[in-house]
Amino acid sequence: MDSLHIELSQNLKQKPEPSALGFGQYFSDHMFMMEYSLEKGWHDPKIMPYGPIALDPSAMVFHYGQEVFEGMKAYRTAIGELVLFRPDMNLKRLNESCERLSIPQVEPSTLLQGITELIKIDASWIPSGEENALYIRPFIIATEPCLGVRASHTYKLMVILSPVGSYYPEGIHPVSIYVEQRYVRAFRGGTGAAKTASNYAASIKAQEDAKQSGYSQVLWLDGVESKYVEEVGSMNVFFKVNGEVITPALSGSILAGVTRDSVIALLKSWGIPVSERKVAMEELVEAHKQGLLEEAFGTGTAAVISPIGSMKWGELELSIGGGKTGKLSKKLYDTITGIQRGQLDDSLGWRYRIE
Amino acid sequence: MDSLHIELSQNLKQKPEPSALGFGQYFSDHMFMMEYSLEKGWHDPKIMPYGPIALDPSAMVFHYGQEVFEGMKAYRTAIGELVLFRPDMNLKRLNESCERLSIPQVEPSTLLQGITELIKIDASWIPSGEENALYIRPFIIATEPCLGVRASHTYKLMVILSPVGSYYPEGIHPVSIYVEQRYVRAFRGGTGAAKTASNYAASIKAQEDAKQSGYSQVLWLDGVESKYVEEVGSMNVFFKVNGEVITPALSGSILAGVTRDSVIALLKSWGIPVSERKVAMEELVEAHKQGLLEEAFGTGTAAVISPIGSMKWGELELSIGGGKTGKLSKKLYDTITGIQRGQLDDSLGWRYRIE
Repeated sequence: MDSLHIELSQNLKQKPEPSALGFGQYFSDHMFMMEYSLEKGWHDPKIMPYGPIALDPSAMVFHYGQEVFEGMKAYRTAIGELVLFRPDMNLKRLNESCERLSIPQVEPSTLLQGITELIKIDASWIPSGEENALYIRPFIIATEPCLGVRASHTYKLMVILSPVGSYYPEGIHPVSIYVEQRYVRAFRGGTGAAKTASNYAASIKAQEDAKQSGYSQVLWLDGVESKYVEEVGSMNVFFKVNGEVITPALSGSILAGVTRDSVIALLKSWGIPVSERKVAMEELVEAHKQGLLEEAFGTGTAAVISPIGSMKWGELELSIGGGKTGKLSKKLYDTITGIQRGQLDDSLGWRYRIE
Repeated sequence: MDSLHIELSQNLKQKPEPSALGFGQYFSDHMFMMEYSLEKGWHDPKIMPYGPIALDPSAMVFHYGQEVFEGMKAYRTAIGELVLFRPDMNLKRLNESCERLSIPQVEPSTLLQGITELIKIDASWIPSGEENALYIRPFIIATEPCLGVRASHTYKLMVILSPVGSYYPEGIHPVSIYVEQRYVRAFRGGTGAAKTASNYAASIKAQEDAKQSGYSQVLWLDGVESKYVEEVGSMNVFFKVNGEVITPALSGSILAGVTRDSVIALLKSWGIPVSERKVAMEELVEAHKQGLLEEAFGTGTAAVISPIGSMKWGELELSIGGGKTGKLSKKLYDTITGIQRGQLDDSLGWRYRIE
C-alpha cells in the first residue's frame, strides 16, 4: 500500500453552533479518499480538503447501487483524549458488506489509519456538548463508467466527518412507532445484513408515510410472513418483557449493529436475561395485554438508545411504559455514552484511543 | 418550466467501430440535465457536452440509494427516420418508480423533449449494423448533501446516450441459466417493481457466482417460498409449454417490462394463447419431463429476446429446445426488431418518430 498523502486545506470553514448541529448537515475541513483498480488494488490513500467529487454520469453507483457504508463516532473525553467506540467492529462489518455487494475488501489497518489521521487533523470539529459527537461516515462507491450490470472494476473509498447533535431533535425521548405492514425493508437472500444503500432506499417511502401519520419511525416486520419484528427505522430493536430482554436474532436480513452487540454484552454483564430469537408482534401484543411489556427501544450509532413510547399495529395502539423512558433504556444509554465519553470505566475494552 | 438551454460541444469525440461496441461502454458527445429543488420544482433543463458531474461526497445517492432509471433505444430506419420504441411506456414507468422511491415525478413531455432534442443533436452516434442501436439512459439521483435517512430535497435528472451492440456478445443465441436458490432479487413490499438501483445491487453477487459456474444469467425465484419464477437476470421471462406461452404475473416484485408488454400483445395478435400467472419451477420440470417445455426466453430493452437453452436447478439440468433458438423466440425477435427498425408495418403504433 502506498503511504498516506496529506494535503491540508487553505480555507478552513466556520464551524456551526454546537447547539444547532442536527444530524449530518455539516462537514469538516478534510476528507479521506482511496482508489481501487483491478491492476493496483486499493491504492493512493490521501487526506485532502473536503469538497465535491467528479464522476462520470455513467459511473455504476448511479445506476446499480453497488455501494457500502459505515457509521461511527469520535468523542473527546473529559481529560482531552480522542476516542472511537469499537472501530474494529465497524471495519469488520464494512468488509462483510463488501463481500455481499461484490466490492473488494479493504485492509482494516489502512482504513483505520486513514480515519484516525483524518480525525486528528479535524479534531477541532469534535463539537462540545453532552449529546454531540463527530460522526464518521466511511463509504465505498462503484465508479466504473459502464452500463453493463456487473461488479465494477473501479471503486472510490471515502471517509467524511460530520459534527452531529442528537439524531432525534427531541434527544433521548420516547418515540411513537408505526408497525409497517405494506412495505418490507429486507428479506432472506437479500442485502438486509449488509450496510448498503439498497436497504435504505427501500425504506424511505414507508418512513415518509409513517411521518405523515404522526409517527417518528417504522417498525419493520419480516418479508415472508409479516409476523416477526426485524428492525426499527434504521436501528436494531429490543423489548423488555417480564424482566427478560429480547431482540430479533441475526437472521440474514437484520443488520449486526455495534450498539446491539454492546447492549447484549452489558445486559449479560449485569445478569439481566437477554435472548436473541424470533419476536412475533402477536407475542408483544399478548405481553402488553398482561402488562408485561415493560420497555422497548431501538439501538444504533446515531441515536445510541432510542426509547419507544408507543407502537401502532393495524387498529391497535400499544402504549409502552406510560410514554416515559424506561429505567433500563436510560441505564443503557448512560452506560454506553459514559464509556464512549470516558466518564465510566472501560472494563470491556471498547474505547479506542487515537494516539 | 424553463425553456431548454443548449450548449454544444467544441470537442467532438471519435466514434467507436460499430463492430466493437459492446454494451454501455461508449457515450455520445452530449447529455441532458435537469435539476429539482423544493422551491423551484424541476427546472433548468439543458443539453451540454458529455462530461463528469461534481457532487458533494455527502450527496444522498451515495449513501441511501435514492435513484431511479430507465432504458430505451433509438434506431435509424432504412429510410433514414429517427425512431424510438414506445417511449410513453418508459416515461410512465419512470414516474411509477419515482413514486416508490419518494422522488418527485417528472412531466413526461418535458423529458421526452429533452430526449428527442438530445438524440437529434447526437444522431450521428446511432451506429450502423443490424443489431446495433443508440441506448438511452435517463436517470434521477438524490443530490442533497445530508446524511439523515429521508427523501432528498434536491435531485438531478440526466439522460446519457450510448451506442451499443448486442447485449450478449453471442447475439441472439441460447444462454444457460442458473436457477438461484440462495439469493433473492426482490420481494413483496420491496422495490422489485421499480426500476431502481437497489434491485440490481442485490443481484450482482448471484450473477457473479453463476458466471463462475459457467452460467450466463440467474433465474430468480420468489422471495417467500422460493418456488415461483420471477425474472431472468435483468429481464422478464417467458415459457412456451405445450403451445401456450406463460409468463409470471406482475406481482409487485417483477418489473413491468416494455418488451414483456410488447411480446404479450404480439402473441395475442397472432392468436397464440398467453397467460400471466404464477409459474412454479416444479411445473416447468414436469412439463420438461413430458417433453412439453418447448421454448424459454428472456425479454428486455437491451437484449430484446434472449433464448434460454438450459436451466440448472439444484441437481437438475433441463435442456430446452435442443439448445437452439426456438421458432417463436426467433419470430418475436424478428418482429420486434423489425418494427423498431422500420422494416415491418407498425400496426400497433409502437414506433415514435423523432421530428
